[in-house]
Amino acid sequence: MTSMLDNALRYAEARRDLFVAQLSEYLTIPSVSARPEHGRDIKYAALWLADHLRELGLRAEVYETGSEADPGNPVVFAEWQHSDPRRPTLLIYGHYDVQPADPIEEWESGPFAPAIRDGRIYARGASDNKGQHMAHIKAVESLLKTAGTLPVNVKFLIEGEEEIGGTHLGAFIAGHADLLACDAIVISDSSLLSPTQPALVYGLRGLIYFEVEARCAAHDLHSGTYGGNVQNPLMALAQILARLKDEQGRILVPGFYDDARTLDADEREALARAPLSEAGIIAETGAGQVFGEPGFSIAERMGARPTLEVNGMWGGYIGPGAKTVLPAVAYARISCRLVPYQDPEKVARAVTEYMRQVAPPATTLTFRGLQGGSRATLIERDSPYMQAAARAAKATYGNEPVWMLEGGSIPVVNDFQAVLGKPIVLLGFGLPGDQLHAPNERFALACYEKGIEAGIRLLCECQ
Amino acid sequence: MTSMLDNALRYAEARRDLFVAQLSEYLTIPSVSARPEHGRDIKYAALWLADHLRELGLRAEVYETGSEADPGNPVVFAEWQHSDPRRPTLLIYGHYDVQPADPIEEWESGPFAPAIRDGRIYARGASDNKGQHMAHIKAVESLLKTAGTLPVNVKFLIEGEEEIGGTHLGAFIAGHADLLACDAIVISDSSLLSPTQPALVYGLRGLIYFEVEARCAAHDLHSGTYGGNVQNPLMALAQILARLKDEQGRILVPGFYDDARTLDADEREALARAPLSEAGIIAETGAGQVFGEPGFSIAERMGARPTLEVNGMWGGYIGPGAKTVLPAVAYARISCRLVPYQDPEKVARAVTEYMRQVAPPATTLTFRGLQGGSRATLIERDSPYMQAAARAAKATYGNEPVWMLEGGSIPVVNDFQAVLGKPIVLLGFGLPGDQLHAPNERFALACYEKGIEAGIRLLCECQ
Repeated sequence: MTSMLDNALRYAEARRDLFVAQLSEYLTIPSVSARPEHGRDIKYAALWLADHLRELGLRAEVYETGSEADPGNPVVFAEWQHSDPRRPTLLIYGHYDVQPADPIEEWESGPFAPAIRDGRIYARGASDNKGQHMAHIKAVESLLKTAGTLPVNVKFLIEGEEEIGGTHLGAFIAGHADLLACDAIVISDSSLLSPTQPALVYGLRGLIYFEVEARCAAHDLHSGTYGGNVQNPLMALAQILARLKDEQGRILVPGFYDDARTLDADEREALARAPLSEAGIIAETGAGQVFGEPGFSIAERMGARPTLEVNGMWGGYIGPGAKTVLPAVAYARISCRLVPYQDPEKVARAVTEYMRQVAPPATTLTFRGLQGGSRATLIERDSPYMQAAARAAKATYGNEPVWMLEGGSIPVVNDFQAVLGKPIVLLGFGLPGDQLHAPNERFALACYEKGIEAGIRLLCECQ
Repeated sequence: MTSMLDNALRYAEARRDLFVAQLSEYLTIPSVSARPEHGRDIKYAALWLADHLRELGLRAEVYETGSEADPGNPVVFAEWQHSDPRRPTLLIYGHYDVQPADPIEEWESGPFAPAIRDGRIYARGASDNKGQHMAHIKAVESLLKTAGTLPVNVKFLIEGEEEIGGTHLGAFIAGHADLLACDAIVISDSSLLSPTQPALVYGLRGLIYFEVEARCAAHDLHSGTYGGNVQNPLMALAQILARLKDEQGRILVPGFYDDARTLDADEREALARAPLSEAGIIAETGAGQVFGEPGFSIAERMGARPTLEVNGMWGGYIGPGAKTVLPAVAYARISCRLVPYQDPEKVARAVTEYMRQVAPPATTLTFRGLQGGSRATLIERDSPYMQAAARAAKATYGNEPVWMLEGGSIPVVNDFQAVLGKPIVLLGFGLPGDQLHAPNERFALACYEKGIEAGIRLLCECQ
């Protein structure tokens, strides 16, 4: 076993540049799921990936999802089932779709023209999530090409709708329980706390996301003629949004926090050990100060408390130059991250009802859900697979992993729990400063290499 | 004299369709001054207009404005000075530039593809201002072609920067006082109160216009990772804007109303006679109710009270689909209409200082002026030219004109007062529902015809 592990690690080290080149090629595909004009790129990413997995010796297939009336993005499934059948099967999940690249002008190099600077590869999807699942693929390759076998059976499920709320994957999982049958699910779609500090995630936040339209007139108006006599939807919307949070960052929607799970003393203590600091957040974000709900630590606000954020807002004239328009309509997009025991529908209802209540005169609000709501997730901490992941992480990074509550949302975890009902391992390979969903997304090459090593060690530890 | 008037009116009536066709051709030119990419269209509009005036027998010239380092849009000057030199000279002002057409998708026909529906011509600039100054040009043509002369001497000054705050026209006027020398200035850039109710404007509001940037981070962030720990600039900006006005529409900036001119009892009584009603505003705008500063009538809020409006706002992800971004920066564009005695700089300082004061934590504000501020204007009501305009308006529309304070701003009026120091006549030919600065701008063909008639009568009344 030791020689199997060592041979695989040596193989990976010797092929370091090639592995980066392969990731780089994958990153050139602009597989933006939020934009219909990238439909062809989405499909190409799926075909490219299946082809790559086949070349490594896996059986790979691209499955369509959705229906003719409501087509979804394809799912890539691959498997290598030639290990001893008494050995466990790991299902490794990832997503090949990426966030839009906007604002495009803030990228130092093209979002789909991967560039290496300062030991990092810069591209949309580098860390979220192409680089992270490629690390697992390269781990499988390293073992398979040196030992001719794997210490466990392996399946891959790489989907294309994670960044848009994945409406079709749930049905795909429910309809393919046999295909996906496994003993544990491994997901690397989160991050380390530092290059040497791994984290194992035991909770994910849920999400609701909706758009609100505030309308005050049938059409845009001249601000000189009607300003002062007709409600302004931008002002009305600003007044509504302003009442959603107080100036300390506490959400003012009645009942918003009611069902939120509270942490026990052990968890608070464990979270307090996470190397998260005000200085760290400031360095990563460029923010002037850390700002958030009073009474909670940074780590608690990041994973254990629900949030409400305005993700976008627009209205009136936003082109170059000036236009003295009194707009008819204004829009905002709002999302809430939810913690365990919060019901997405109940929270959405509380927020939208409150917004209607506090709306100023002559303002009509219309709400439109943008993603299916998802509940937060709690994951068992003492499954044998989590323990195996903890050993693999310690061996790779030199430190015991910290137990973390992740601030982001991975809605598919709920589907895995509901349909497959098996332990889940959430071990991230990226770094907090990777600028996910932002310009100049990056993935440190050292993180990629360590991710491959952790992947190899995890497969060996799970046998 | 009567036969001169009658012949001109008959000429105009006989050429009704041709005059509409000529206006229509003029309206196809997308002379949008706010957009640099329309620079060629701006120039073409000026050349087209000068050519048209020359064809009618006027001496016309296109003047460049600004300097090589800071070029302005050209000015069209034309004159017919062959009347008895003892007769007065009228300077007729207009602007050939138009507002941007956004939001383009809300136009029922192309903004620069003039279409006639329900007795109106639809196009950007139809009412503001191409149709209105074309009415004066057609009035001059009708007299000149029938009598071979005009009852007065006439000059035209048609400029190309009205919709962007006209930074170069002031210098042009100051540098061409002799060229522009006249006995009165006539401006048709406002509106009737109804098809049969003319208005003479004796006050115009001033304007300040600025953009504010609210920045909370160096780059966009993942809302799952940083939401709850880093200030959101859209929320911060909403909270700032919300504190600019109370929910009744009263502006909360300390000192904002201090210097505003108050109306005397006569003026309030005269304004009360204007046929402006809540039902009328609702019909014109589609607003659910009239909404504005308590304690003032619609007409008073429209022209006699200062306003503060958000003309545009944007930040975060506003493309199709959903993106859970925590934006780094958000923007708003804000303008204030000013009334007499308010100082633009003082008001701008008060607003921006207050916004900084009420900004929530971790928010950096940057302000940028978008137009040079302009003061409000008061115009003498009993000049002989205003009286002539009142007679012309009554004869044309059948009713005595109402004295009005106009809500919009025509900054050039201040330059005329300062440099030429002559009486001003503000007689509008459009209608309140013309959707100036909005999609589906229109000009009723009946208004165009009546505008030509009023123009003919005004020239005859001024001799």
